[in-house]
Amino acid sequence: MAEETLNFIPFERFEIGQVQEFGAYEVTREEVIEFAGKYDPQFFHLDEEAAKQSLFGGLCASGWHTCAMTMAMMVENMDKTGRSLGSPGIDALRWLKPVYPGEVLSVRMEVLELTASKSRPIGFVKSKVTVLNQDGVPVMEFISNGIFPRG
Amino acid sequence: MAEETLNFIPFERFEIGQVQEFGAYEVTREEVIEFAGKYDPQFFHLDEEAAKQSLFGGLCASGWHTCAMTMAMMVENMDKTGRSLGSPGIDALRWLKPVYPGEVLSVRMEVLELTASKSRPIGFVKSKVTVLNQDGVPVMEFISNGIFPRG
Repeated sequence: MAEETLNFIPFERFEIGQVQEFGAYEVTREEVIEFAGKYDPQFFHLDEEAAKQSLFGGLCASGWHTCAMTMAMMVENMDKTGRSLGSPGIDALRWLKPVYPGEVLSVRMEVLELTASKSRPIGFVKSKVTVLNQDGVPVMEFISNGIFPRG
Repeated sequence: MAEETLNFIPFERFEIGQVQEFGAYEVTREEVIEFAGKYDPQFFHLDEEAAKQSLFGGLCASGWHTCAMTMAMMVENMDKTGRSLGSPGIDALRWLKPVYPGEVLSVRMEVLELTASKSRPIGFVKSKVTVLNQDGVPVMEFISNGIFPRG
């Protein structure tokens, strides 16, 4: 599978204010503990009883796990709608609320800014990514920067 | 294990310009593929042969996997030196270079800004986090925001 065979979205297809909503990722206790055991072994991500004594009031997902679950939804969406050439990074990532097992996450992406490269056949798309729980409450947000080919 | 029994670093112990260096995380092919399979199933994170055709020139870790490996080193360092009350988020995260299997990552943290809360017995520590490979080349950087108790 060479890159040329992939379905890239041309930069010109974006408009400021465009909104995409997608995903349904169920947060499970097992996965919260598995991720934390490998990458964020703080007691409030690992131990249900001990977590009751924490500021979070119960076992909750590592913030980095929420990022990973969000990426899983974003890649699934790319498989349906097309993909970017990559990302140089993320701005203003905020963990707004603890994410608890049993919640179902989804993603809302809104295009904020479009910048065509002056020197290369690419463009930069800045989007606001909001991750919501099943009640529509935002639990995390960040600004994503995507690189797309000019058509 | 209640939070009171944990070893928090008091806000007053920080100084602007303080540097901590820690960690040695070996990036393995198996783990790159396992993480990507769950959270970032793009071909350049999954398939060694196909990845040779990508912009990265070979199989490389998901950027979110690099964040997770960094957090593992940060928590290990907390176990030794003390911990924060949490983090509201991250700023200016940049994936500077692809991270390939066989690399060994480490972390450099430098205190940039200290802000005592006027209303609560806490303070905010803004640090620059740089993740380096075994050759000392930065592969990722971000600004972390930590909340610490005032002593």
